[in-house]
Amino acid sequence: MARRFRGFRVSYNSFGHSFRFSTWGESHGPAIGALIDGCPPGLKLSEADIQPFLDQRRPGQTRFTTQRQEPDQVRILAGVFEGRTTGTPISLMIDNVDQRSKDYAEVAKAYRPGHADYAYDAKYGFRDYRGGGRSSARETASRVAAGGVARLVVPEVSIVAHVIEIGGDRATAFDPAQIDRNPFFCADAEAAVRWETLVDEARKSGSSLGAVVECVATGVPAGWGAPLYHKLDAQLAAAMMSINAVKGVEIGDGFHAARLRGEDNADAMRPGEDGPEFLANHAGGIAGGISTGQPVVVRVAFKPTSSILTPVETIDRDGAAAEIATKGRHDPCVGIRGAPVVAAMMALCLADAKLMHRGQTGR
Amino acid sequence: MARRFRGFRVSYNSFGHSFRFSTWGESHGPAIGALIDGCPPGLKLSEADIQPFLDQRRPGQTRFTTQRQEPDQVRILAGVFEGRTTGTPISLMIDNVDQRSKDYAEVAKAYRPGHADYAYDAKYGFRDYRGGGRSSARETASRVAAGGVARLVVPEVSIVAHVIEIGGDRATAFDPAQIDRNPFFCADAEAAVRWETLVDEARKSGSSLGAVVECVATGVPAGWGAPLYHKLDAQLAAAMMSINAVKGVEIGDGFHAARLRGEDNADAMRPGEDGPEFLANHAGGIAGGISTGQPVVVRVAFKPTSSILTPVETIDRDGAAAEIATKGRHDPCVGIRGAPVVAAMMALCLADAKLMHRGQTGR
Amino acid sequence: MARRFRGFRVSYNSFGHSFRFSTWGESHGPAIGALIDGCPPGLKLSEADIQPFLDQRRPGQTRFTTQRQEPDQVRILAGVFEGRTTGTPISLMIDNVDQRSKDYAEVAKAYRPGHADYAYDAKYGFRDYRGGGRSSARETASRVAAGGVARLVVPEVSIVAHVIEIGGDRATAFDPAQIDRNPFFCADAEAAVRWETLVDEARKSGSSLGAVVECVATGVPAGWGAPLYHKLDAQLAAAMMSINAVKGVEIGDGFHAARLRGEDNADAMRPGEDGPEFLANHAGGIAGGISTGQPVVVRVAFKPTSSILTPVETIDRDGAAAEIATKGRHDPCVGIRGAPVVAAMMALCLADAKLMHRGQTGR
Amino acid sequence: MARRFRGFRVSYNSFGHSFRFSTWGESHGPAIGALIDGCPPGLKLSEADIQPFLDQRRPGQTRFTTQRQEPDQVRILAGVFEGRTTGTPISLMIDNVDQRSKDYAEVAKAYRPGHADYAYDAKYGFRDYRGGGRSSARETASRVAAGGVARLVVPEVSIVAHVIEIGGDRATAFDPAQIDRNPFFCADAEAAVRWETLVDEARKSGSSLGAVVECVATGVPAGWGAPLYHKLDAQLAAAMMSINAVKGVEIGDGFHAARLRGEDNADAMRPGEDGPEFLANHAGGIAGGISTGQPVVVRVAFKPTSSILTPVETIDRDGAAAEIATKGRHDPCVGIRGAPVVAAMMALCLADAKLMHRGQTGR
Repeated sequence: MARRFRGFRVSYNSFGHSFRFSTWGESHGPAIGALIDGCPPGLKLSEADIQPFLDQRRPGQTRFTTQRQEPDQVRILAGVFEGRTTGTPISLMIDNVDQRSKDYAEVAKAYRPGHADYAYDAKYGFRDYRGGGRSSARETASRVAAGGVARLVVPEVSIVAHVIEIGGDRATAFDPAQIDRNPFFCADAEAAVRWETLVDEARKSGSSLGAVVECVATGVPAGWGAPLYHKLDAQLAAAMMSINAVKGVEIGDGFHAARLRGEDNADAMRPGEDGPEFLANHAGGIAGGISTGQPVVVRVAFKPTSSILTPVETIDRDGAAAEIATKGRHDPCVGIRGAPVVAAMMALCLADAKLMHRGQTGR
Repeated sequence: MARRFRGFRVSYNSFGHSFRFSTWGESHGPAIGALIDGCPPGLKLSEADIQPFLDQRRPGQTRFTTQRQEPDQVRILAGVFEGRTTGTPISLMIDNVDQRSKDYAEVAKAYRPGHADYAYDAKYGFRDYRGGGRSSARETASRVAAGGVARLVVPEVSIVAHVIEIGGDRATAFDPAQIDRNPFFCADAEAAVRWETLVDEARKSGSSLGAVVECVATGVPAGWGAPLYHKLDAQLAAAMMSINAVKGVEIGDGFHAARLRGEDNADAMRPGEDGPEFLANHAGGIAGGISTGQPVVVRVAFKPTSSILTPVETIDRDGAAAEIATKGRHDPCVGIRGAPVVAAMMALCLADAKLMHRGQTGR
Repeated sequence: MARRFRGFRVSYNSFGHSFRFSTWGESHGPAIGALIDGCPPGLKLSEADIQPFLDQRRPGQTRFTTQRQEPDQVRILAGVFEGRTTGTPISLMIDNVDQRSKDYAEVAKAYRPGHADYAYDAKYGFRDYRGGGRSSARETASRVAAGGVARLVVPEVSIVAHVIEIGGDRATAFDPAQIDRNPFFCADAEAAVRWETLVDEARKSGSSLGAVVECVATGVPAGWGAPLYHKLDAQLAAAMMSINAVKGVEIGDGFHAARLRGEDNADAMRPGEDGPEFLANHAGGIAGGISTGQPVVVRVAFKPTSSILTPVETIDRDGAAAEIATKGRHDPCVGIRGAPVVAAMMALCLADAKLMHRGQTGR
Repeated sequence: MARRFRGFRVSYNSFGHSFRFSTWGESHGPAIGALIDGCPPGLKLSEADIQPFLDQRRPGQTRFTTQRQEPDQVRILAGVFEGRTTGTPISLMIDNVDQRSKDYAEVAKAYRPGHADYAYDAKYGFRDYRGGGRSSARETASRVAAGGVARLVVPEVSIVAHVIEIGGDRATAFDPAQIDRNPFFCADAEAAVRWETLVDEARKSGSSLGAVVECVATGVPAGWGAPLYHKLDAQLAAAMMSINAVKGVEIGDGFHAARLRGEDNADAMRPGEDGPEFLANHAGGIAGGISTGQPVVVRVAFKPTSSILTPVETIDRDGAAAEIATKGRHDPCVGIRGAPVVAAMMALCLADAKLMHRGQTGR
């Protein structure tokens, strides 16, 4: 393991330019947290503004998510005085409560295919194998907490994230009212019913399913996004791809746009109330990396959870052949709880883009 | 337009952490360029190492690309001494030669749907309308030049980018030898023939087509990529999405992975020569944001060129109704010349990831 | 104070490029902390490695420092597994215990001359007035904690910081053994005796004194420091000037060098064991922003504590005339406890410079 | 020299957060330049706004500076359209004209004491020895050019830099009108006369002198500077210390403040026209890292030019004993031309601080 002493192996855990956040913490450490820097002063902020978003992604609420029981109570340790942000760093902390490290004895020895186990060892020569350590989806709780603060920076924007596909079964209807009425953040009541069977089957057979999440932000004015390397779509792509299990990102028509002809893909404009009225939104609200005033539309592909009970061929830390079936508690479809995380990343990208553009809080 | 004086409207034109590059220049200004900072010292470098990549994306070579004639000769103005990099900033410059600004009289007044025209005005209250100014695909020449330097930082890696789909017509065969034998960077000789007809038809009818580019990097060792917000896949997603006309990015199986079951998506391992031998590469060579040693696979969706001769409904700068048909010289399928740009962004991301990980040049 | 809603007023609380740290927390909030990113993996680290440095700057130990009683017990919340750093973010937290916010009723209304009170209100339109909030010297405890980790990254370096002047009275002798034997971090036993009287007098008369701290780092190899805008001396200057009450920074001969002739200021070299043997060190171990292998020497000027019992003319938040005499508990000479803070900033700058240069941990 | 291939040896040539600039180029390369990113759009800008500042620092104008003849004509290559900034990167270029590389044959072999020669070799294993390459004071021309643009971002601020001391001889009078009437940027007519003799003597005897430059910025409103690690004074300290030959920086009373008592150092306030009227400015216009509305005062110490005709003991690249007397053309007192550079760095820091605070151009 001399390797571990040789390398530079820098890590980088901050995101954003003007509204920056950093996350810290391992799945089975004492706590996880987020540190926000660059938040404008004078915004009303308390734990109550953040908790509802954490509750959305909280595990253990239905049989379709991991059974790990985490209250995920957030505490604000700095940056707020008399109920308002002061413009100084906002420190958020969430205690880890329900760890079962013993579940991971096997993971300590062998690498779980599809997981970051092997890659982390290759990089750092050393890893906290308990629950995936830093590579655990548990880290996304820190993002959701930070996202709760970001939403206060963009009060003019409304963000909706919903699951549009699970295991290849696509939702067809879109009724926003449905999203909170089923365990799948699904806007299609009928699809939600089908997905219950689908996910149950996968869970019981020790398998897992992938999913696609769509996120729409309305109320974003024209002009947000900093060309050429802080383009709004580029930041969104990085933000979404940095979420565990994400393998694809689309803006607007995305890959489908590659199949359209120029005249069909053009979002024609005509004079509107204030600014142009667009006749279509193939672009997903972004042109040249800058928002156009239309809804910002992003779609994110989640692979099936890598932790499955089905035994898979692998190697152990000494490079010898092994077989592993992941015990411990896991989501049969990690994409489901991905929805609130995608919404949080959207909020974080928009807060940063707004401050880089307007330098204002919108009040 | 008092608006132009009020805003913060920051721009941000640098990319990378350890190996950083910045680009500058407008389509019809005197020149464009790239500034590279963080390049290791002692690397052999001359214009001849960069020019071949610029020649690949150079316009005006076939009837399938814009007829603008640009020699795109790169000059190294700093950072090299006695044929070797010194570790100081490398300044690259490319003169603009064949501008025809008069073509853009109309663009100055009305906004081209699908273009950044309206968004730039909304952001800056002011834009260089000649050929799209800073938002022009001409900027990608700077990226390709910087990419030529980046390749010297990762000599162990081989990067291949090819077009796998145009206007919805997918290539099926993969023969690397074919890529340079047709004007489409296509690895499928038969598809290349079909595409000639396809693109000709679009060009003649004043329309345009979209395309999908695939890029594969072999020889990337395990361990590159800095969790959690400089993940290799997140950086690649940002890099690709920042390219003009790109609307989607996939790593490995991408959106298809969302339709697989856990056991089908798992890249099982068995003991190999050095490190593990993987039985599949659904992950596209990246797990937990860190390279696994398998080939890194990215797919990028380009929308059809927004500049088309077909008249489209729009508004002018005063918000009045107008109609615009883009004259000037344009690519009927911007995705074709996107291939060398995608390859360059891959090289730039890998050079940065390598230095962040190894802090070494590989020599 | 509607102003508070209008501004961008970004804050920025991170320092360093490869070895980065951020601090958070207010003087009278629940806790303060530091977040370290980029620390190499595999380093042995526990609270015991950090606590001794915190104990050095801890208040309430002698009558020459503030009587606020803070145990300053540091907790490591993330980034360490089985006693070693993992390469992931290291989260450090210190609880605030002995707050007496009531002391600050007056400060809430009127601005203390020499303090950041007025400037913070002018910037943020809003401030946590309790003990100076974020602008309190209490924040330096976070730096000292982070510095404890930084020292592990540069084990080859030995750092000594000592007070060389208080209230204009200069120490003449230099006996390192003395530094820990008096309450002033003074290497001159006789000066320490004189300073007791000096500081006592100031304390009793409700006044305060300034001081000069010198910090020497030996064992720094040649080559650290990144030209041109991460020069080692420039980073040290920023680091030291960012400490509360600091008004001047010198490297090597500093201002005295401006009075020397070229031939007297030149550090001649002759062949040595390994590398050159220097005949002098006017440069303070840095040339062209890069370490030369000689001891790195920095001197830092601390102004007298601004909080004094002597009443001073000022204005209140409404702009009306007022007079203020700062009650609460304060250091009669803030420069004394500045010594461990200066040492910590030296360690933090060197750790960053080393990683930017060698990309290695020195093991 | 295998060393040159092994290292990470990152360089870092950018400065600023919201208003960022990067410089590039070597003393004897084809050109040098600056790239500015983050400049607000809509500002009137042409070469004529920049050239006067370059002319101030231009060499070869009097016998008191190097005889190298450089027209230092700046060209704007990007970021300006129809006479106004567009918000895109501003690329500035200055051709090198009067190189005499042959003068440096000796420097290629032996290290000049006090110069960066040895340090650069130790860092990069490789250096452009012609005129100091990247470490040459010639690089400061790029800073002055960038500073010319920065001044347009802070039109409300007036910046004056003048030399207050040469070779230990201090100026006593302050008559701004004098500054441009003598070759020393001296506000004291009598001192200027004395300095002629002083500098002539040093020049003729093949020696050199140090100097102290003072820079005052009036019109800076209260509130600029981003706590805690982008404090205005910390940024100024880094900016000034990054200038060639600088060894010390003071804000306000600087080191003298360490000798004052609290009541003497306090800048008392009383109600004024708008905001407070300060009764003194010991703080140099900055408290808690934030501007107070008073004049911002910085003093910078320049060591004597290291290039002297007097032979000095040194070693050559092979580590053997040698003696060197620097031929070539050099400033007998590099601090003199340091004044316009100090003023430029002040402008650059203030432009960045303003945008970070107001997110506005002030128009």
